[in-house]
Amino acid sequence: MISRLIEAIKKKDAPIVVGLDPVLSFVPSRIIKEETDEKGETLDAAASAILRFNKAIVDSVCDLVPAVKPQIAMYEQYGIPGLIAFTETVNYCRSKGLIVIGDVKRGDIGSTSTAYANAHLGKVKVGSKEIPVFDEDFATVNPYLGSDGIKPFIDVCNSNDKGIFILVKTSNPSSGEFQDKVLHDMDSTLYEAVGIKVNEWAKLSMDGSYSNIGAVVGATYPKMGEILRRIMPNSFILVPGYGAQGGRGKDLKPFFNSDGLGAIINSSRGIIAAYTKDEYKKFGEDGFADAARAAVIDMREDIRNV
Amino acid sequence: MISRLIEAIKKKDAPIVVGLDPVLSFVPSRIIKEETDEKGETLDAAASAILRFNKAIVDSVCDLVPAVKPQIAMYEQYGIPGLIAFTETVNYCRSKGLIVIGDVKRGDIGSTSTAYANAHLGKVKVGSKEIPVFDEDFATVNPYLGSDGIKPFIDVCNSNDKGIFILVKTSNPSSGEFQDKVLHDMDSTLYEAVGIKVNEWAKLSMDGSYSNIGAVVGATYPKMGEILRRIMPNSFILVPGYGAQGGRGKDLKPFFNSDGLGAIINSSRGIIAAYTKDEYKKFGEDGFADAARAAVIDMREDIRNV
Repeated sequence: MISRLIEAIKKKDAPIVVGLDPVLSFVPSRIIKEETDEKGETLDAAASAILRFNKAIVDSVCDLVPAVKPQIAMYEQYGIPGLIAFTETVNYCRSKGLIVIGDVKRGDIGSTSTAYANAHLGKVKVGSKEIPVFDEDFATVNPYLGSDGIKPFIDVCNSNDKGIFILVKTSNPSSGEFQDKVLHDMDSTLYEAVGIKVNEWAKLSMDGSYSNIGAVVGATYPKMGEILRRIMPNSFILVPGYGAQGGRGKDLKPFFNSDGLGAIINSSRGIIAAYTKDEYKKFGEDGFADAARAAVIDMREDIRNV
Repeated sequence: MISRLIEAIKKKDAPIVVGLDPVLSFVPSRIIKEETDEKGETLDAAASAILRFNKAIVDSVCDLVPAVKPQIAMYEQYGIPGLIAFTETVNYCRSKGLIVIGDVKRGDIGSTSTAYANAHLGKVKVGSKEIPVFDEDFATVNPYLGSDGIKPFIDVCNSNDKGIFILVKTSNPSSGEFQDKVLHDMDSTLYEAVGIKVNEWAKLSMDGSYSNIGAVVGATYPKMGEILRRIMPNSFILVPGYGAQGGRGKDLKPFFNSDGLGAIINSSRGIIAAYTKDEYKKFGEDGFADAARAAVIDMREDIRNV
């Protein structure tokens, strides 16, 4: 699967993933009004509104970017209708030729991790049938439970040609509370220990010179990104925290390998809510999709200058 | 919320939670056949089968135990129909007076963690309405992202009288890969550092002498349980790993405080798939619910002897 992502990044010349994290406050009031007029103030109305919002954004940017990253929490909060909107978003993006990274941050152990992996990347067996479920291309995974949590995902990646990004150093201010702890026996930090494990796991699912097993490292920590880039040479790094969380183009260089590959930069609010920012206000609320396109083009320039 | 759990534990005199982690291989073939005959080999059939299985188990044990813990992965793998079965399981258990611990192991940052917390424990706003979504009583949460991931859950617990159990030391064999790392500055392990944080967070949501903020510590690590019991005096410990994973009654003592409270022991397969074990084979496949009841009674005896 990683070779497909690399091909798409090269074709579009943009190592960019658009985070589809819609919240109702980003969705133009006209859309919300139409949906709530028809369906009442219900989960159905909210889900329909975010699906319409997503589709307009996707139509506007799908020729520019290789991938999207829907954040499942933003759909799960609207319950079953929200998760139907998640499924429809995944399917719509795939129909537009985009690679879909499910930002699900799942992680458990044994058969439970297998269940999550099957749900998001594999197929589930019912009688003699094997049925794909949410069917993203990649998923994000939490490493706190160790190999017992990760291996079932690797197995499912290998049987279904899919990939994962494992949380290593997250972009948020408090990520250091545990991740930056210095370990006694290794004279290194927890995030480095996780990075070392990711590099071991990466070898179990190679696809060309990169692995289907990647890592998440926040743009907000470029020095740590540099260290982790060296520790995990075969792993793609999914880099959140660009834009709204404070990461900037010049901070991104350490995340890439010398081949110009190895990283894909996410922006969520910076793109999908671009119209709310001074820079793109001229597009107006109804021009949210055009504003998103303009923000992608500006982000692409910012990254190409690195 | 924790005071409600304590009251229920005292009333039933059983600090036991039944893990509702149904997989199709536990569900009697008669039920699966009836569902697939009607609905085909579909996600709908699988979801209906596990819901029927759950309801029979719940009917059979609800007078004996205070709480159930549905593992959402086992439902998520059957997609939207599976998640509808999850919702219906939660609602059915609550209608029977059981406290529901959603084993969801979610965790993200900021507004994303708020979205997960609202989905599982709070309400989501659509226009002027505030709508409860999956509406469990407790949820399990992953601490890897630090306070940014946990605080939104605490806020939602405080506004909705709910609780969480934070993963500290998980029951699986590889949990030590990261959790047991010795930290340089503290001369303690990562799981102890997480336990110290849980104790701080616990103070933010006290409800009587216990907190709504609890911890997950595996029955398979009783010595670590003893250490963590001391570190987190106000936190209830949710203890998985009893039975099928190897934990036994005599291992459970360290998880309790001297007041006889402070822990609730989970058993999943050991109860819901009891009829597959030699001990309870006499009940037969169609007696799975009676076998589950017998297994709960035996587990209660095993724990009362501690």
